[in-house]
Amino acid sequence: MAFHKSLEQTARAVELLLPEFRAIFGERAVTSAAVRAHHSHGEGLPDPGQPDLVLFPLANEEVAAAARLCHRAEVPIIAFGSGTSMEGHVAAIHGGVCIDLSRMDRVLEVSTDSMDCRVQAGVTREQLNEHLRSSGLFFAVDPGANASLGGMASTRASGTAAVRYGTMRETVMGLTVATPDGRIVRTGTRARKSASGFDLTRLYVGSEGLLGIITEVQLRLFGLPEHVVAAVCQFDSLRAAMDTVIATLQLGVPVARIELLNDVQMDACIRYSKLDEFEARPTLFIEFHGSQAAVAEQVDMVQSLASENGGSGFRYAHRPEERSRLWKARHSCYHANLAMHPGWSSMGTDACVPISALVDCITETEADIRESGLYAPIVGHVGDGNFHLGIIYDDADRTARGKAEALAERVALRAIRMGGTCTGEHGVGLHRIGQIEVEHGEAINLMRDIKRALDPAGIMNPGKMLRM
Amino acid sequence: MAFHKSLEQTARAVELLLPEFRAIFGERAVTSAAVRAHHSHGEGLPDPGQPDLVLFPLANEEVAAAARLCHRAEVPIIAFGSGTSMEGHVAAIHGGVCIDLSRMDRVLEVSTDSMDCRVQAGVTREQLNEHLRSSGLFFAVDPGANASLGGMASTRASGTAAVRYGTMRETVMGLTVATPDGRIVRTGTRARKSASGFDLTRLYVGSEGLLGIITEVQLRLFGLPEHVVAAVCQFDSLRAAMDTVIATLQLGVPVARIELLNDVQMDACIRYSKLDEFEARPTLFIEFHGSQAAVAEQVDMVQSLASENGGSGFRYAHRPEERSRLWKARHSCYHANLAMHPGWSSMGTDACVPISALVDCITETEADIRESGLYAPIVGHVGDGNFHLGIIYDDADRTARGKAEALAERVALRAIRMGGTCTGEHGVGLHRIGQIEVEHGEAINLMRDIKRALDPAGIMNPGKMLRM
Repeated sequence: MAFHKSLEQTARAVELLLPEFRAIFGERAVTSAAVRAHHSHGEGLPDPGQPDLVLFPLANEEVAAAARLCHRAEVPIIAFGSGTSMEGHVAAIHGGVCIDLSRMDRVLEVSTDSMDCRVQAGVTREQLNEHLRSSGLFFAVDPGANASLGGMASTRASGTAAVRYGTMRETVMGLTVATPDGRIVRTGTRARKSASGFDLTRLYVGSEGLLGIITEVQLRLFGLPEHVVAAVCQFDSLRAAMDTVIATLQLGVPVARIELLNDVQMDACIRYSKLDEFEARPTLFIEFHGSQAAVAEQVDMVQSLASENGGSGFRYAHRPEERSRLWKARHSCYHANLAMHPGWSSMGTDACVPISALVDCITETEADIRESGLYAPIVGHVGDGNFHLGIIYDDADRTARGKAEALAERVALRAIRMGGTCTGEHGVGLHRIGQIEVEHGEAINLMRDIKRALDPAGIMNPGKMLRM
Repeated sequence: MAFHKSLEQTARAVELLLPEFRAIFGERAVTSAAVRAHHSHGEGLPDPGQPDLVLFPLANEEVAAAARLCHRAEVPIIAFGSGTSMEGHVAAIHGGVCIDLSRMDRVLEVSTDSMDCRVQAGVTREQLNEHLRSSGLFFAVDPGANASLGGMASTRASGTAAVRYGTMRETVMGLTVATPDGRIVRTGTRARKSASGFDLTRLYVGSEGLLGIITEVQLRLFGLPEHVVAAVCQFDSLRAAMDTVIATLQLGVPVARIELLNDVQMDACIRYSKLDEFEARPTLFIEFHGSQAAVAEQVDMVQSLASENGGSGFRYAHRPEERSRLWKARHSCYHANLAMHPGWSSMGTDACVPISALVDCITETEADIRESGLYAPIVGHVGDGNFHLGIIYDDADRTARGKAEALAERVALRAIRMGGTCTGEHGVGLHRIGQIEVEHGEAINLMRDIKRALDPAGIMNPGKMLRM
């Protein structure tokens, strides 16, 4: 069943609890309109829903204490990291208490020998890499945004480097979680692998705040590559580019990143980032990590595969500033697209399909975009079969959002039909609830069973991911 | 609560259902004493418990139909793969129906472009690699035994190549599962990554038949390495060997296998496998995969790291028959150990710790073994921090098994104390139930909640993994 309290009932329940929250959190229990508004949304399109109260815990035990209070009064709990979700994960659609973990920002432990670390959930990706700078290690999951590591764990985030280093699924070794009724639980161990009981770590990774609140994250780290080279190569067709990607993966060339921009996306990037040396054609951005010799060999192999597929203009960037110019252009897709239609809005999609289906999936999608009349460049983490449309539409045109949503829905359903998923890395949140029902079929009922077992009162981020 | 029927009640319930089982399975519903006895144990030490009936399904729907009958009558269901478990997973301690999946042995689909496949649960590891032989791909998880892929998924198996290619946790992309009440559910997709809902695939991987019956497995495959070289290097101390391992991992050298044998284990292997060129010292067995140039560079790097740590006698094997002689010696540890004391029994341990704790953990364990007076060589998948004792004891000596069990228990608890796990790859089964309670603390109650949610009647492999 859906969450049962009305917004008014919840607001009243929170008001009644306020003295108890204040006793624990003091000034760190905030009800100001500005703070509540800030905690009502991530970075995606706006959704309704403000929390009644925002708490800023500093320690596991504070999170657990807050959960116990909310549990007793059956008040919704919404965990908040850095607010970079695209899918409405943090919108407090049933009101309730937002637990902002950003002040739990300590790196608790780093082991260079075991190549792992433990951090509080509010530590961000960039903060951790800054902390690790002199250790020779780095944290490899790179979704672009400077997200909190608790948030990245909660949404099973990934990004450009997943093809080599894995996603949060492979990177999180263990978690500290506050349960909905306020117990503090540790999942996993510091061992690299384990066959010891149900894999609770992987159950909480990607659970989007529906089962508990992640307060600490144990993470796998990698050695900083000795040598890094970026390369860009352009192709006459999507298929030629993807044949290069598939051959690269089959040969086991350990590319660190391999990104596809379609012709429309390259056009926007050339204009926005002044990439005058390139043409508006399907293009691969590639990065190689390793020893000098290993990188040289990898570059040779990929260049010859690209040549076999008619790739041209293979350009390298060895120096950090050249590399950073290219990757900045790649990471500016969102802004490049919006710059094509100033004042319009962007709606993202996140399909991920088996690599063998990717050309057909993108080709059908390009035809679909043309028919729709919408402007929607495509960029993808193609080593994983994941690609994004940036659907740019005019919010002032009353029919435009509906058309954009319909296109986004078709993209998701096409990916599912082709054996893939509607979301490779952004998560479900408010926006893909119907799509994952199509994707999972009967399995969605097992997810509901687990939700009811671990959150019987239904207070954890209600209204997200699963229709209860 | 524990499973509630007595053995007699279960036997009677199965007898009453027999006509219905026969209607579905015909000759493939077997009650003969020999077949029941064969299905009462794996390869570990004997445990009591015979099933009342053994079924040999050919299709998902038959498994689901069997589950529905057992569910209705509240009769235990035990899934059986190839019977290679070391931990009593298949012992029918409450009687019931054993579902032997070995005749579900078809490779259903292989995609060379997506580098994945879908197989029925009874396909074995070696059968799959034989099937893939001309495809340029291979299945990389290698636990030694020719286990079924459903069984390997159920126990989260790994083995020697996990340091490079991952364990079943990373390799299984999706599953078909028959639920305890006989629904057929698909988890996961063919996409390489997904942020779509709870990670049911990872929940079933390692669930040891407690939540459902795995009937099909979608697996990630890798390209066959162009070039393979094996190497063996000997050290004056464990620490010197482990410093070489740690430096190798930190530099990101992608070794395919890196195994440690302690002096006692080398002594046994030298005698058994006639490795006369080696001495009874701590020894690393390493395998390198890649292009000719990449392998040459990896070998150079590891050799120079080994030299820095006083490693000597670095020997390569380029030709398949040389490699196979070395790895055969490595894989013969179990028999080599038993050959030291003909007629005695072997009890295994499966500790896995953070790499940084491995030297201390093994050193303390060696002292513990000396004090115990037992003979227990050590071999480990040290790239993952996982090591095994083969405790060889005389079953005729009434106190010996108790001493061996006490040592095994101390090894497990030491690993847990050092931040690791009591089982890296063998699973819990009947033998580590108490140990995982120590390891997981309060988290064990969340596992129990999940068990109750997905198997409310408690019929799935009762008595294993979790004390209910």
